[in-house]
Amino acid sequence: MNLEERTSLERWLGESRAWIEEGLELLLPGEEEHPAHIHRAMRYALFGGGKRLRPALCRLICTSMGGAQADALRPAAALELVHTYSLVHDDLPCMDDDELRRGRATLHVAFDEATAVLTGDALLTLAFEVLCHPSLPRATESMGCLARAAGSRGMVGGQTLDLSLESTDPEELGDMHDRKTGALFAAACEMGAMAAGAGARTCRLAGQYGQDLGRAFQATDDLLDVTGDVGTLGKTPGKDRTLSRPTFVAALGLEKARAKARDFGEAARESLKALGWGPDHLAGFFVEFVLSRRN
Amino acid sequence: MNLEERTSLERWLGESRAWIEEGLELLLPGEEEHPAHIHRAMRYALFGGGKRLRPALCRLICTSMGGAQADALRPAAALELVHTYSLVHDDLPCMDDDELRRGRATLHVAFDEATAVLTGDALLTLAFEVLCHPSLPRATESMGCLARAAGSRGMVGGQTLDLSLESTDPEELGDMHDRKTGALFAAACEMGAMAAGAGARTCRLAGQYGQDLGRAFQATDDLLDVTGDVGTLGKTPGKDRTLSRPTFVAALGLEKARAKARDFGEAARESLKALGWGPDHLAGFFVEFVLSRRN
Repeated sequence: MNLEERTSLERWLGESRAWIEEGLELLLPGEEEHPAHIHRAMRYALFGGGKRLRPALCRLICTSMGGAQADALRPAAALELVHTYSLVHDDLPCMDDDELRRGRATLHVAFDEATAVLTGDALLTLAFEVLCHPSLPRATESMGCLARAAGSRGMVGGQTLDLSLESTDPEELGDMHDRKTGALFAAACEMGAMAAGAGARTCRLAGQYGQDLGRAFQATDDLLDVTGDVGTLGKTPGKDRTLSRPTFVAALGLEKARAKARDFGEAARESLKALGWGPDHLAGFFVEFVLSRRN
Repeated sequence: MNLEERTSLERWLGESRAWIEEGLELLLPGEEEHPAHIHRAMRYALFGGGKRLRPALCRLICTSMGGAQADALRPAAALELVHTYSLVHDDLPCMDDDELRRGRATLHVAFDEATAVLTGDALLTLAFEVLCHPSLPRATESMGCLARAAGSRGMVGGQTLDLSLESTDPEELGDMHDRKTGALFAAACEMGAMAAGAGARTCRLAGQYGQDLGRAFQATDDLLDVTGDVGTLGKTPGKDRTLSRPTFVAALGLEKARAKARDFGEAARESLKALGWGPDHLAGFFVEFVLSRRN
């Protein structure tokens, strides 16, 4: 990706971030709405930075397939609500026990543990509420896609595996990543395609692209834990190794883990070809962006 | 309610229990399905007794309005999944810190805290997944109803209030109960009416009946904490007072709290009248059953 390509993708990501934050602002209950405590906590969790990659993907796929940006808004908001709830619950003392996220106190530190549990629950529930709108094309299908991706066979299943996985078998590791990260990336792309009114085959290809992109994202995460520095990463590197967490680097070594990330990126580009999208498509730059990210 | 009426209601509740447990058995991932840990935990939480009142209400309203029992199954299962997830999260150490529920170890005791958080998340997500089915009449409307009842303005909002409420103002107490208990009872009846294809006014009346029934249920709960004994109650009475929790008994005294419960029952019967249902309707016996329950 040359400088101009990177600039055009970054401009596009910035626009998407502004778009989804404006949308979330409208879809969330007001900070002072009763019961105010939970509504303040929901906003604290949701408006604390974040790259908004899943909403950006959903918007990209929808508009690239000729859909209206407005039709992608509710699916994109639902995806970000699910992602945010998962971070709030992941940070809890009984899970990863993190006190900082994006340079701010995590929710259970800024509020308390009970509020963090309930806020995650409320964000997850709101995700499905925002999808129940008569204006949304194929609402039921979109909700089914999100629920499957987020549930016990998807993201929550992946988090369960992450808590107990001790094996460094690359297949088991890949299965855990597919559920924990890949499922929601895939749903972002599929829901974008659905919002554009795409047919079943096209939705499937978009989902495949999303899944491979999620794999590349997660494999890069493993690399950054070894090669990143605290300044650009925004969190402490080396945590995976300290906690003896299974990663591709632990399983394969640094060089093979790098190759694995590139392979996933290649697979994502193959799905784009099958969709008829050339190498100069923003979705292609997205692959490069995910592989070269520093945080 | 005379002996025959009570017997006919109890037979009907028993049938509903068997019906929903068979349905849940089919809708839940198998115990050995990968990732098995979370699927075992979901089943532990869901199949541990329970009166299944919300599914029974949903089935009752649907079939009383001429709907097919089969059309009420997915809404009823979704309601029980939401109710069960809320109990799992409520029992956590950072919330009510309960070690026993229905005579069995609570989920975080039988498994661990992280599993309990994730299992609640998975059950809530599955509730929306089971509603995403092409066979379900008015699926989007039903999901919207459930999401609003369960979210930050409904059940989760009520739980947030319960954690911090110190006032014994009966209005604030009633608002907390309406959210924490009434909202899901109301949704059970509304979703039953929707499944039967009822119009907007009828759905609203069914919801009003459910809300008043929920109020009567919760007011009776407050009474049982004072008047119940551990044998029939299945849990330790006096806990509300020991924890200085706000209840109608604390706010109004025993006699006025009793009158309050009866008033709520009367209001529920009024909604039934507006629906054109006479005093010999099972929904009327349901009111009496809720008021006279001992556990």
